[in-house]
Amino acid sequence: MHKLTTLALTIGFSVAAIAAPRNEPIQPIEPAAITDEAKVELGKQLFFDPRLSKSGFISCNSCHNLSMGGTDNIPTSIGDQWQEGPINSPTVLNSSLNVAQFWDGRAADLQEQAGGPIANPMEMGFTHELAVEVLQSIPQYVDSFNQVYNVKKITINEVTDAIAEFEKTLVTPNSRFDLWLKGDDKALTKTELKGYELFKGVGCTACHNGVNVGGNSFQKMGLYEEYVTKNPAEGVAGLTGNDLDRFKFKVPTLRNVELTYPYFHDGAYWTLEEATDVMARLQLGRTLKKTEIDNIVAFLKTLTGEQPTFTMPILPPSTNATPRPEPFVKK
Amino acid sequence: MHKLTTLALTIGFSVAAIAAPRNEPIQPIEPAAITDEAKVELGKQLFFDPRLSKSGFISCNSCHNLSMGGTDNIPTSIGDQWQEGPINSPTVLNSSLNVAQFWDGRAADLQEQAGGPIANPMEMGFTHELAVEVLQSIPQYVDSFNQVYNVKKITINEVTDAIAEFEKTLVTPNSRFDLWLKGDDKALTKTELKGYELFKGVGCTACHNGVNVGGNSFQKMGLYEEYVTKNPAEGVAGLTGNDLDRFKFKVPTLRNVELTYPYFHDGAYWTLEEATDVMARLQLGRTLKKTEIDNIVAFLKTLTGEQPTFTMPILPPSTNATPRPEPFVKK
Repeated sequence: MHKLTTLALTIGFSVAAIAAPRNEPIQPIEPAAITDEAKVELGKQLFFDPRLSKSGFISCNSCHNLSMGGTDNIPTSIGDQWQEGPINSPTVLNSSLNVAQFWDGRAADLQEQAGGPIANPMEMGFTHELAVEVLQSIPQYVDSFNQVYNVKKITINEVTDAIAEFEKTLVTPNSRFDLWLKGDDKALTKTELKGYELFKGVGCTACHNGVNVGGNSFQKMGLYEEYVTKNPAEGVAGLTGNDLDRFKFKVPTLRNVELTYPYFHDGAYWTLEEATDVMARLQLGRTLKKTEIDNIVAFLKTLTGEQPTFTMPILPPSTNATPRPEPFVKK
Repeated sequence: MHKLTTLALTIGFSVAAIAAPRNEPIQPIEPAAITDEAKVELGKQLFFDPRLSKSGFISCNSCHNLSMGGTDNIPTSIGDQWQEGPINSPTVLNSSLNVAQFWDGRAADLQEQAGGPIANPMEMGFTHELAVEVLQSIPQYVDSFNQVYNVKKITINEVTDAIAEFEKTLVTPNSRFDLWLKGDDKALTKTELKGYELFKGVGCTACHNGVNVGGNSFQKMGLYEEYVTKNPAEGVAGLTGNDLDRFKFKVPTLRNVELTYPYFHDGAYWTLEEATDVMARLQLGRTLKKTEIDNIVAFLKTLTGEQPTFTMPILPPSTNATPRPEPFVKK
């Protein structure tokens, strides 16, 4: 009897565990496979190190805050000297699953992206040369780079490679939606499921699909109606000079979208209800009812996955030889 | 034979473990005793939450960065709108061991201190009322405060109490110097020990003594020579209006001093060598030789303790009802 119960339980569990994955336009995220722990640890230190900025105050984590969904939760970011950034900071979470980086896709991958903000006068306001000089002046960093990359002289390539390797670990598996995708019928409520059916039915999955529920194509913002904004960003047209590419942006991931407000490249919309309404009207030519929007929002909140948990890095101290930060413009 | 060896080893270990603590003007730090984990966890979230600032960008950790010795490693701090702060941010590490808080001691304890920067227009630029309104709009925070304090309506008192309880855990025990204090002869090199003997011999321990190697008295900066600075801070005189209190500051802790550069209330000196030289001349009327300074600096670096290690907090998301941050002045 006891044995039979155990057997029944075992079968029960097995059925749940090996339930057939569903055939859907969205696929579940798999946990990150960390192959080089020392490299990831070095990248984590660099991600949190404000000495990669001119002021000594801004780190990658300032605008891609891992306590807050990998974003800064403000419309556009604060840069060196409190400059107002030109565009909303996209989440770093699951960013390795995007086809390219930045809203206009101008960086092919995370390593290329990582070098951008360091040297952007509007962001960290530093230079690659000075960033490397800072790291090279700190024996613990020199040791780490030597151990991980077998180099005595650090270059920006190792710096951005390590940051990118850390960022690749920042995936958020096991959202309730992913559990449902993997076959767990109880992972979603009826409302959430209704929201997902609507999300598909009205056509959101045309762009928000794949493992990252977006991030894999560039689309024009404002197909049926024009998107009205004071933000001057041109999208892909800023790179190609082609007017047809105006307002063409990388489709943002909807993973953890509950955490990554405010929304769109200008960060102009703070609520998921507004953002859903705007998207349906502008991209799909549909005006959704309030209950439809509420159901879709209920679904969107099931995309919040397990946030990366890690110990806060302890940064090695500067030395007498370290170039000093310049937080304030000299009077 | 085997038993005897074991016995010998046991005795060996015991001798090391119970070696008599030394009778010195500095005492070792004991690890923090955490009695209320939920409260500490809540305090940690608040410490890292930039929504306690007007801009949504500055948290306690911005200027008391726990990756960097509990400081920001710049001369004076960056506040709301990149305002230049009036004084160097003291380390939050071991701050519970100080007799009072702030350079002029105007806050009696950590709870009183915690309310200051939130509402200071030069720092986080917010109000206590708005900070509480933000927290009250976030169900997970409401639940946590209810669980920890048995309140439905959050007030600033619970906010600052939780932050203070977290900060009390930020002690750094087991520095090499502490191991030596506890009887481990091998914990210090000869040079470091020579440095400590000099540190005592020339009179540094008159002020830098006790568990926190400072932090327990107020002293005039510039006894034998005037301290020349462009920084307008008056010290205790700013509170009392008494000219005799001019440049009287709380003696800073020397714990983790290797990590808490730049030094003094104006953050004007970046190296321990310079800081030691200035202190000896201005406070003790002595000009130290280079080798003496080097020995004292070697000793000072043995005061770096175990840095607090903890997982990065994940902050609960804002809701549609949460007051929105105002990062930029409206044009």
